[in-house]
Amino acid sequence: MENGFVGELVGTALLVLMGNGVVSNVLLTKSKGQNSGWIVIATGWAFAVLAGVVTAVALGSRGHLNPAVTLAFFALGHFPKEELLPYLSGQLVGAILGSVLVWLAYLAHWKSTEDAGIKLACFSTGPAIRAPFANVLTEFIGTFVLVFLVVAIFNKSVGTTGVLGPLTVALIVYGIGLSLGGPTGFAINPARDFGARIAHSILPIPGKGSSDWSYAWVPVVGPILGGISAIGIARLAGMM
Amino acid sequence: MENGFVGELVGTALLVLMGNGVVSNVLLTKSKGQNSGWIVIATGWAFAVLAGVVTAVALGSRGHLNPAVTLAFFALGHFPKEELLPYLSGQLVGAILGSVLVWLAYLAHWKSTEDAGIKLACFSTGPAIRAPFANVLTEFIGTFVLVFLVVAIFNKSVGTTGVLGPLTVALIVYGIGLSLGGPTGFAINPARDFGARIAHSILPIPGKGSSDWSYAWVPVVGPILGGISAIGIARLAGMM
Amino acid sequence: MENGFVGELVGTALLVLMGNGVVSNVLLTKSKGQNSGWIVIATGWAFAVLAGVVTAVALGSRGHLNPAVTLAFFALGHFPKEELLPYLSGQLVGAILGSVLVWLAYLAHWKSTEDAGIKLACFSTGPAIRAPFANVLTEFIGTFVLVFLVVAIFNKSVGTTGVLGPLTVALIVYGIGLSLGGPTGFAINPARDFGARIAHSILPIPGKGSSDWSYAWVPVVGPILGGISAIGIARLAGMM
Amino acid sequence: MENGFVGELVGTALLVLMGNGVVSNVLLTKSKGQNSGWIVIATGWAFAVLAGVVTAVALGSRGHLNPAVTLAFFALGHFPKEELLPYLSGQLVGAILGSVLVWLAYLAHWKSTEDAGIKLACFSTGPAIRAPFANVLTEFIGTFVLVFLVVAIFNKSVGTTGVLGPLTVALIVYGIGLSLGGPTGFAINPARDFGARIAHSILPIPGKGSSDWSYAWVPVVGPILGGISAIGIARLAGMM
Repeated sequence: MENGFVGELVGTALLVLMGNGVVSNVLLTKSKGQNSGWIVIATGWAFAVLAGVVTAVALGSRGHLNPAVTLAFFALGHFPKEELLPYLSGQLVGAILGSVLVWLAYLAHWKSTEDAGIKLACFSTGPAIRAPFANVLTEFIGTFVLVFLVVAIFNKSVGTTGVLGPLTVALIVYGIGLSLGGPTGFAINPARDFGARIAHSILPIPGKGSSDWSYAWVPVVGPILGGISAIGIARLAGMM
Repeated sequence: MENGFVGELVGTALLVLMGNGVVSNVLLTKSKGQNSGWIVIATGWAFAVLAGVVTAVALGSRGHLNPAVTLAFFALGHFPKEELLPYLSGQLVGAILGSVLVWLAYLAHWKSTEDAGIKLACFSTGPAIRAPFANVLTEFIGTFVLVFLVVAIFNKSVGTTGVLGPLTVALIVYGIGLSLGGPTGFAINPARDFGARIAHSILPIPGKGSSDWSYAWVPVVGPILGGISAIGIARLAGMM
Repeated sequence: MENGFVGELVGTALLVLMGNGVVSNVLLTKSKGQNSGWIVIATGWAFAVLAGVVTAVALGSRGHLNPAVTLAFFALGHFPKEELLPYLSGQLVGAILGSVLVWLAYLAHWKSTEDAGIKLACFSTGPAIRAPFANVLTEFIGTFVLVFLVVAIFNKSVGTTGVLGPLTVALIVYGIGLSLGGPTGFAINPARDFGARIAHSILPIPGKGSSDWSYAWVPVVGPILGGISAIGIARLAGMM
Repeated sequence: MENGFVGELVGTALLVLMGNGVVSNVLLTKSKGQNSGWIVIATGWAFAVLAGVVTAVALGSRGHLNPAVTLAFFALGHFPKEELLPYLSGQLVGAILGSVLVWLAYLAHWKSTEDAGIKLACFSTGPAIRAPFANVLTEFIGTFVLVFLVVAIFNKSVGTTGVLGPLTVALIVYGIGLSLGGPTGFAINPARDFGARIAHSILPIPGKGSSDWSYAWVPVVGPILGGISAIGIARLAGMM
């Protein structure tokens, strides 16, 4: 149980540090990667996933790092109830910790960046076009793909072994970011978004604006429903 | 048989969702990846292949996801006749379903995009320079490489195991997209193009234009001939 | 022996088709990947190597695809004399065949491209700054890294198996292209450059200019010397 | 012992040759990859790591290539005292040698590049915003991630074998470069930075400026502290 908490906490912290780190690199003023584009963001998130999952597994958790994954497995009876709280709390605390580390890693750049919206984007996602139903749908589809693939990758017929497991998951997130990240910035993970938003609202970031709490439910509800649907359909299709 | 149908359907749906998803991300107005270029498109398609093939294999099909592959193996006696219909129909229905999911994932962006040609490009391929013979030739060569490599990758001497199979196929499609995608947008798959074109013609996309049916035969004929030639030469060369 | 010839021929043809294909995609007018930059070129060449080596191995050769590799192993007694001619001739004929395929794959684009220098670049390399000594040095260093790494990758202590061999070689070429390709366009392979130059001089390309034969010796001499030095030092260092 | 010295020397030379090679390709005037951006730099460094570690392992060292790694393992009793000097000296000499090779590979481009700051950047890192505490913090965090992940990747539960070890380390450096490289250019390795700075100060580079020795302590102190902290926490967390 405790291993689950520690693994999820540290793994999610690394995921968010490196994931929101790459957003900061691309968006913050004077950063060496400023304006280096979507390929940098998606590639950075992919290997953030690799780092987070490998670490979590090394620390003894299953490497979910994502409440949408944990809740989906739990909802359909594939995850023990007593590990639910350690996993979910580890993920949330880890996301907050990771966000604090992003703030520290880019410490000199917050003051030189003027746009408050850009500063929020280094923490939480926001929609390209604000349209709650469409935004939830996008997050639903993106997370469906993620969770469905997690099941597929570890299906016996595929034969995924060792570090190729985390690597393949990372490459799937790479694909999701490139392909489905356009409308909402692919949160596909409630902790990654909500934990980072909490950090944004608390941290003493110079010239920060609103944490946009009115949008906060979208990257929570969309991913959770998408994850549960993925496990449901994976089971119906005989994939697990 | 049914496993073949389901696997091909779901796998092709994921392939097209993520493949045409990345085109949408790069082309649609206000999308976060707008104008992020060819590297994003090719990378997105590569990991779309990874997602599709892994899923199809997990569901019990061979992970063709492409009538040019299935027909080529069949034409030279390497695919059972009774699985032909489930595979081909699964691939076509999957491509239509995947296209519908692209439409939903980018739901808020169709109205804000003015150019009807861009909207069609999020579904089906079109030529950079309209020249039917040259366009067929390009699709022929691209699909030849794909199918030839599928044979090579799973040849005993190479020793490809487990998830490295789908991953290597994905990286070959990555290469094909980067190298041979310039003239026609690398359909290299009749279902991916034809199914998506059907979806484009049916879906209520605001301000959509022609589905360009006059070009539709090119990404069907070129890939099928290229695939059959690849299997023929692979056999002549003793590679299978 | 014949397997060596066929494998090297087909493998090198694929290498050059996909390698020079990506250059064509980035440089030729109206190509969908026009101006998509160095990342596209280096990534395309990397997976061209993957395609070529996997195919060559599947056909029964060692997957050299490069006279600088074959000659280096031969010069230090690690390659049988009787296979030398089949390998070298297969590589040269393969490079010419691959170049013809590039010409066909981009058939509609030669007329629309005005700059003759760009057309040559879709076949053979040229220097960013013409300085023969420096250019030879760059090709020497790039090929040294390639051949040295080929030895290292297949050294027992590293433990490279199956398709991970060709994949790792491909990623090393990825690195070389990104890191050492700036001054001369990383030929690092006499056949790839010389065979393509022969094709350029013969093919009926509209508006083509000089094949720049005065530079042709550089991507032959630099790579051959670099390869031999790499094997020499690898042996001195006890790596083989 | 000697194997350690040779392996670290040659591996670090390749790391720095390819790593600083890609910076040169992106920054030096007339280089074919000029202005190709952060994705090229981060990708180039990633496969520089692959090349360096594979070579070092093939030559019989552990493939540290980085005093921050060696000192961290040593400080907590996981590295033998008698190998400390061969490793550290091999790393420093290797970094100097690699820098000399970068100078040679780009020999024709130093004169055509005017900006002295750009020339220094082809050797050593510098801060985007000069702020010593923040800069040390960034280097601390980046190296923490690197060293922590090295431990995690080779933890039994992860099951990393053969060449997938160096490859996974390379992909983590890829992630660190993309995500945490923005403020200081991710030295995350004292030898890579200090050795290259020595080379810059000695080599006869036309129009070179200051070697910026006032910053030289940052990419030494930050990485060493970060590495030691990573091993400390990895041990506390039961990961080693």
